[in-house]
Amino acid sequence: MEMEKNVQILLGSRPNGYPKESDFQVIESEIPKPLEGEVLIKVLWLSLDPYMRGRMRDEESYATPVAIGDVIVGGAVGVIVNSRTPALNPGDYVEGNLGWQSYVVSDPRFLRVLDPSIAPVNTALGVLGMPSMTAYFGLLDVGKPSPGETVVVSAASGAVGQIVGQIAKIMGCRVVGIVGSENKKSYIIDDLGFDYGINYKTSNMYEELQIACPDGIDVYFDNVGGTITDFVLEQINVGARISVCGQISQYNLQEPELAKRNMWILIRKQAVMQGFLVFQFANRHEEARKRIANWIDEGKIKYREDVVDSLENAPKAFIGMFHGENFGKLLVRVSE
Amino acid sequence: MEMEKNVQILLGSRPNGYPKESDFQVIESEIPKPLEGEVLIKVLWLSLDPYMRGRMRDEESYATPVAIGDVIVGGAVGVIVNSRTPALNPGDYVEGNLGWQSYVVSDPRFLRVLDPSIAPVNTALGVLGMPSMTAYFGLLDVGKPSPGETVVVSAASGAVGQIVGQIAKIMGCRVVGIVGSENKKSYIIDDLGFDYGINYKTSNMYEELQIACPDGIDVYFDNVGGTITDFVLEQINVGARISVCGQISQYNLQEPELAKRNMWILIRKQAVMQGFLVFQFANRHEEARKRIANWIDEGKIKYREDVVDSLENAPKAFIGMFHGENFGKLLVRVSE
Repeated sequence: MEMEKNVQILLGSRPNGYPKESDFQVIESEIPKPLEGEVLIKVLWLSLDPYMRGRMRDEESYATPVAIGDVIVGGAVGVIVNSRTPALNPGDYVEGNLGWQSYVVSDPRFLRVLDPSIAPVNTALGVLGMPSMTAYFGLLDVGKPSPGETVVVSAASGAVGQIVGQIAKIMGCRVVGIVGSENKKSYIIDDLGFDYGINYKTSNMYEELQIACPDGIDVYFDNVGGTITDFVLEQINVGARISVCGQISQYNLQEPELAKRNMWILIRKQAVMQGFLVFQFANRHEEARKRIANWIDEGKIKYREDVVDSLENAPKAFIGMFHGENFGKLLVRVSE
Repeated sequence: MEMEKNVQILLGSRPNGYPKESDFQVIESEIPKPLEGEVLIKVLWLSLDPYMRGRMRDEESYATPVAIGDVIVGGAVGVIVNSRTPALNPGDYVEGNLGWQSYVVSDPRFLRVLDPSIAPVNTALGVLGMPSMTAYFGLLDVGKPSPGETVVVSAASGAVGQIVGQIAKIMGCRVVGIVGSENKKSYIIDDLGFDYGINYKTSNMYEELQIACPDGIDVYFDNVGGTITDFVLEQINVGARISVCGQISQYNLQEPELAKRNMWILIRKQAVMQGFLVFQFANRHEEARKRIANWIDEGKIKYREDVVDSLENAPKAFIGMFHGENFGKLLVRVSE
């Protein structure tokens, strides 16, 4: 075992609006020792995801908030370096909620073992992990697209959005992605095969959506909420399904944004707006993982990762995500 | 045939906010004559419903707006006084979209024949008509209540709300009604058997909902929208269903109301919000009518009508509905 220290990133203070680097506290501590039945994991990859912002709030949600002084939660992939259970051996790769730290002790029951011969282990955090599960169930089970329908997805080049759009293409839909830069727009059209891209920062959203969706919008996969969603709702078809996955435009507001009430649209269009969490489909994650792996093998799904080196850079990268600075699934390479 | 005139109420001007009596124009015209294949109907009962306010706006909706100078649309019951088709005979009772007028010519295909031996013909506009169809499908097909769940309904003593609550009781739910007066509150509890009533005009909604719904809210049947709905959403359970039937709090606003965005609740609670129109279940209206008629026979469904005499009083009664002045299904007795 190395004599190095464990690097941990703690929640130093609850962010006030957008998180700042000073809200995070980087400490060094002793590498923990596994008890009987436990394993010591060296973290290789940490996933950065928008939901973590919600956990930094001190309010009721679907999960307990992170306490001040606690290691921030996060999905990660690591390798076993010390095992005190026959269930896992040193050298085994695992995925779990390991948090923002370079070493962690865990009970094997909370870990999923990865086979590095099938796919690079970091894909367990992205295209074969939680973001893709989110895309798969949020699109297919909540959005229920039919061939020929028009699907719009916001944050379309992100970890979830890029998979949503490609699955919608596989399902035979017209696919429109909303992104925040010309680079991202080119990427979703040229590399991922979306039918149309809208850069919300430079477009008249109303007019662009009309051009992009001449037959209206049947499915909207909402990662962002806010005014982008308002514009989309104005152009939904009768019987539209709105799959509410995220509201990233709202996560860093101190007070909820005021907006014109528009629920009347749901009546007029006999439309459904459904929120979901990826956990609610937990018993079907393997089904989704297999189908997505097949689509990757067939060349029907591509993906892009945005890799940041070193755990110390995680806060900066996390903050940048809320300003649209990442391009693809955001990962931190914690150790080689 | 009587030598009397036809009284018609036209849309004189588009209401600016709450409709005023001056927005309506009462005229007398000749009683129309049926052509070959048509019937002349003497209107007996006119239904007044909140949706009519939407038709007075000059904007796209699920139906064409009423033009300035046109007879206002409305469901009505009448009796055939002259028939030029073998399909219908003088004395037959019919229901249809006959409008705010005392006589009207129609093609029999647009009429539903009523059997006055089964129920008073005015029930075709209320407890055996559109409001109850709305309640039935909006609760059972959209809200999907299960026994033991808590159902909240707003505008609970109205034409739709009173039926929603009673069907929910039949389904074995805990039922909470939101109303705008103490009289209406007593009515839904004492006469209709609701478990709890909240007078939103005199209550702390947050606290009252907590007392009324100790196990949270599983189904919300929304007739009103606005702040009442915001309060309900704060207390929904995981997996809640929100059946969006109406938004009466918003219909008379010149500009949409500003409100705090709260769609994040749908994600956190994995909840569904679904708008619907009664027409989308048209092929199942007979099913609903039969079940409701049985429940009335069994004493499980009661209903209350608020009857206004004379067509000339329809504008005033219609305006009063938006101020909560009616108590039960609002009907105009056009002719004896």
